Amino acid sequence: MGLILEVENGDDDNDAVLVPPPNFAMVEDCIFRSSFPTSSNFPFLQTLNLRSIIYLCPEPYPEENLEFLRSQNIRLFQFAIEGKTDVSTPILKDSVMDALKVLIDVRNHPVLIHCKRGKHRTGCLVGCLRKLQNWCLSSVFEEYQRFAGVKSRTMDLTFIEMFDILSLSQCLYSIIYQYHGYGSKKRRLLYKDENLQKPRLTSF
Amino acid sequence: MGLILEVENGDDDNDAVLVPPPNFAMVEDCIFRSSFPTSSNFPFLQTLNLRSIIYLCPEPYPEENLEFLRSQNIRLFQFAIEGKTDVSTPILKDSVMDALKVLIDVRNHPVLIHCKRGKHRTGCLVGCLRKLQNWCLSSVFEEYQRFAGVKSRTMDLTFIEMFDILSLSQCLYSIIYQYHGYGSKKRRLLYKDENLQKPRLTSF
Repeated sequence: MGLILEVENGDDDNDAVLVPPPNFAMVEDCIFRSSFPTSSNFPFLQTLNLRSIIYLCPEPYPEENLEFLRSQNIRLFQFAIEGKTDVSTPILKDSVMDALKVLIDVRNHPVLIHCKRGKHRTGCLVGCLRKLQNWCLSSVFEEYQRFAGVKSRTMDLTFIEMFDILSLSQCLYSIIYQYHGYGSKKRRLLYKDENLQKPRLTSF
Repeated sequence: MGLILEVENGDDDNDAVLVPPPNFAMVEDCIFRSSFPTSSNFPFLQTLNLRSIIYLCPEPYPEENLEFLRSQNIRLFQFAIEGKTDVSTPILKDSVMDALKVLIDVRNHPVLIHCKRGKHRTGCLVGCLRKLQNWCLSSVFEEYQRFAGVKSRTMDLTFIEMFDILSLSQCLYSIIYQYHGYGSKKRRLLYKDENLQKPRLTSF
């Protein structure tokens, strides 16, 4: 992504104004989150060069959005999580675990996570990612609450807290990966011999 | 940054837990924002491989933080903006403009922006960056409010709205840069012949 500028088009600002979906933010390099995008957000989404979308609702994806995904060659990963799922359901854990596997797979990056409002389901998935990244729990909660605002749910926070990070690591081991170290303590999950750039048509 | 994992140290989780400063978030690839970091946040900040910090308060930087910056070879850019500056002061505009110039200069990346709480001064600077990126104003405001919460200030929103984007573009032209195009409409501000990696000591 980086700094996307339109300095050439100083004259026709109105045409070029980009509209991110509500609750849009960058989670990590090449990982984004938002509420449900509508057609007004498509020009903005195009600037992200998405390779995939993780969609966390059971409702079918709208035809208009599917059409946009097809035109941009974006893959849709759907995980049918109900809006108000009981935290104790093991199905929820399994769904979030499956979504996490897709999320941390750099072959799917850049990736956008969204549910309906980008608060609860998206917040839970991002929270579990942060645990995996070893963030302290209070910071994980703070981030969840920044997006959920007054709609913050204790059961979501409990879900994140209880989410089994050890079994998560086990899952990680099951994926083919290599470490890419910048320093003594940091590792970036990378695939060997994997072309991380989205193939793009170039015309001269 | 990317996915920072500590899967090797599954046994000593407590040692490895990372504490981001309150209100921490990634703004763009290699641009971060937060409240004032304290020593408890230094291990987390280390994972960002910062090259510089943009500090938006008039108060002198604490010796403890300066020591951390020296040890990590991080450059400090301080812009003395008062906590409750009158929006009409031209000094504020000038300070934000100067900070923006530093912010969009990739030679300073990865960069962390912070003030005291990461709400108002940081929010104004990020808001001006978003305008430069051609985000629609309502999305810019939404992002500001996500971090400011109930402390959201109308005068900050007015400042962002009134901030002269045309003169900003003029400033951009004054910096040596080249365009790096991914698609038809996107440009990334890059310096020619610039080594974008932070020089690092490697020992074998």
